[in-house]
Amino acid sequence: MSTPTFSIELTDRDRLIKAAFEAKEFAYSRYSNFRVGAALLTTTGEIIKGANIENASYGGTICAERTAFVKAVSEGKRSFTGLAVVTDVKSAISPCGMCRQVIREFCSQAMPILLVPADYEQRLAEGVADGGVKETCIGELLPDSFGPEDLDRPRTQ
Amino acid sequence: MSTPTFSIELTDRDRLIKAAFEAKEFAYSRYSNFRVGAALLTTTGEIIKGANIENASYGGTICAERTAFVKAVSEGKRSFTGLAVVTDVKSAISPCGMCRQVIREFCSQAMPILLVPADYEQRLAEGVADGGVKETCIGELLPDSFGPEDLDRPRTQ
Amino acid sequence: MSTPTFSIELTDRDRLIKAAFEAKEFAYSRYSNFRVGAALLTTTGEIIKGANIENASYGGTICAERTAFVKAVSEGKRSFTGLAVVTDVKSAISPCGMCRQVIREFCSQAMPILLVPADYEQRLAEGVADGGVKETCIGELLPDSFGPEDLDRPRTQ
Amino acid sequence: MSTPTFSIELTDRDRLIKAAFEAKEFAYSRYSNFRVGAALLTTTGEIIKGANIENASYGGTICAERTAFVKAVSEGKRSFTGLAVVTDVKSAISPCGMCRQVIREFCSQAMPILLVPADYEQRLAEGVADGGVKETCIGELLPDSFGPEDLDRPRTQ
Ligand SMILES: [Zn+2]
Ligand SMILES: [Zn+2]
Ligand SMILES: [Zn+2]
Ligand SMILES: [Zn+2]
Repeated sequence: MSTPTFSIELTDRDRLIKAAFEAKEFAYSRYSNFRVGAALLTTTGEIIKGANIENASYGGTICAERTAFVKAVSEGKRSFTGLAVVTDVKSAISPCGMCRQVIREFCSQAMPILLVPADYEQRLAEGVADGGVKETCIGELLPDSFGPEDLDRPRTQ
Repeated sequence: MSTPTFSIELTDRDRLIKAAFEAKEFAYSRYSNFRVGAALLTTTGEIIKGANIENASYGGTICAERTAFVKAVSEGKRSFTGLAVVTDVKSAISPCGMCRQVIREFCSQAMPILLVPADYEQRLAEGVADGGVKETCIGELLPDSFGPEDLDRPRTQ
Repeated sequence: MSTPTFSIELTDRDRLIKAAFEAKEFAYSRYSNFRVGAALLTTTGEIIKGANIENASYGGTICAERTAFVKAVSEGKRSFTGLAVVTDVKSAISPCGMCRQVIREFCSQAMPILLVPADYEQRLAEGVADGGVKETCIGELLPDSFGPEDLDRPRTQ
Repeated sequence: MSTPTFSIELTDRDRLIKAAFEAKEFAYSRYSNFRVGAALLTTTGEIIKGANIENASYGGTICAERTAFVKAVSEGKRSFTGLAVVTDVKSAISPCGMCRQVIREFCSQAMPILLVPADYEQRLAEGVADGGVKETCIGELLPDSFGPEDLDRPRTQ
């Protein structure tokens, strides 16, 4: 069986997905009981992990993806080459709209976003070459997006 | 010149777009100076208007689209057939990811969303049949979305 | 038994509290099952009702109090004299911090905020003069608050 | 001149305040131009830094304090003994309501919160023993707070 070609180099892809699983362990998902882990790969090969941190107000909840981004950016890292997201669900779960908007602020349209099923390791063991990972990007997840440059457009008033 | 066919019936489309312009007048956009108006059409033909209401904390800001939705839903209206959004920019400006996620909660994938340029009336006067309106829907704006049913999926843990 | 003196005139107080109970009926509290109703009194005697509108993303949730405020402000009403909040809990439940920040944007420090227990009517019937309502204000709920004027302060950089 | 007594031990207090200043350097405050740094002290003496990370949608903005909290909690640190916050303003600036609600989720009512003026170092050099720091706590900043236990209260419906 031939190895598939991935847009993130295989070693990094493995590290990134493993990091997302590790990140999930620290979810504070007291209200939804829906744990999410995210891992962000920087251009220098560093990985930053995030988990969902919920809040009694519900509206104060911050998702795993946004946690990873604010962690990275608040440490001066603003250049990314990949994001992996995993939950406890055996199918690829997609980021919410708020997270897509934050990804939009910092990433290129084509940066790979890996949506990882909870049984990824088992699928790999069963010979599924990509482990059931769904690869997408913000260009696909938030088409025709609102962004920083829109705030600078000339206005009629 | 032939009249184009619109997915929202012409009279309603006109009312909806006019309402979005009216809504914009009440924007509280003290921090961005970026006014947005939204109008939501219910299945019974009612129109609910929303404007962006900003907050000194920035994070507490609620966009025009979400204002329209919480207004409607808090009055028991949960069935919608169209949304129009307008800003002070002469091009169609798209909803942010947070608003897309709220639209996702209450609307069908194909419900028409009209992105209206600020110079809509002038374009109509100049003979542009659709006034430069860009029509889209949440299926297009938030593909492969996260939604209520995802929280109910079986989990490995 | 003597009638207590209320900071909101008795007729308005009654209308406002009744409106908060009515508002609660339209809560969209699918995830928390925690219904909240809010009612906002304008200087012209109008009442605007809000309910909590939750979202699958949790973070996209908008509370009853904020719903009432964005409804009012998006209709050009920015001058308020009272707010009432009620839940399904038999004790006075206080607004979350996000709502306090939005109240802060539009209300005076001393504007009465009435926290109404779910069994208010029963308590009135039992002769409790104030129905168990707890009266407070944003000066008390968000002391030493961050506000619009802070963004305008001179900066060292 | 006698040294004042601080609720956080002097060495930790110094480290914490310095960390908040360092954190501020990484603010992504493109829209408000209002930089904020925060530093959180854990019970094991570790310090976690946060900065405000803004977003074109405004509502997607995450403050410095919340950034510090989600960083810490997503790394398994949930036990804190102090928080310091600094901006570019020469007076103590207080957390917004959203941040107060997140602090409320993880901290005791009395945990010291240090609001640090931008000219702290200069004031120290001028002999102001506390450098102009204003000390408070979440019990003071979010009195009568809404919290996790409220969601568990018995309901009438
Ligand atoms: Zn999210
Ligand atoms: Zn929006
Ligand atoms: Zn609230
Ligand atoms: Zn804040």
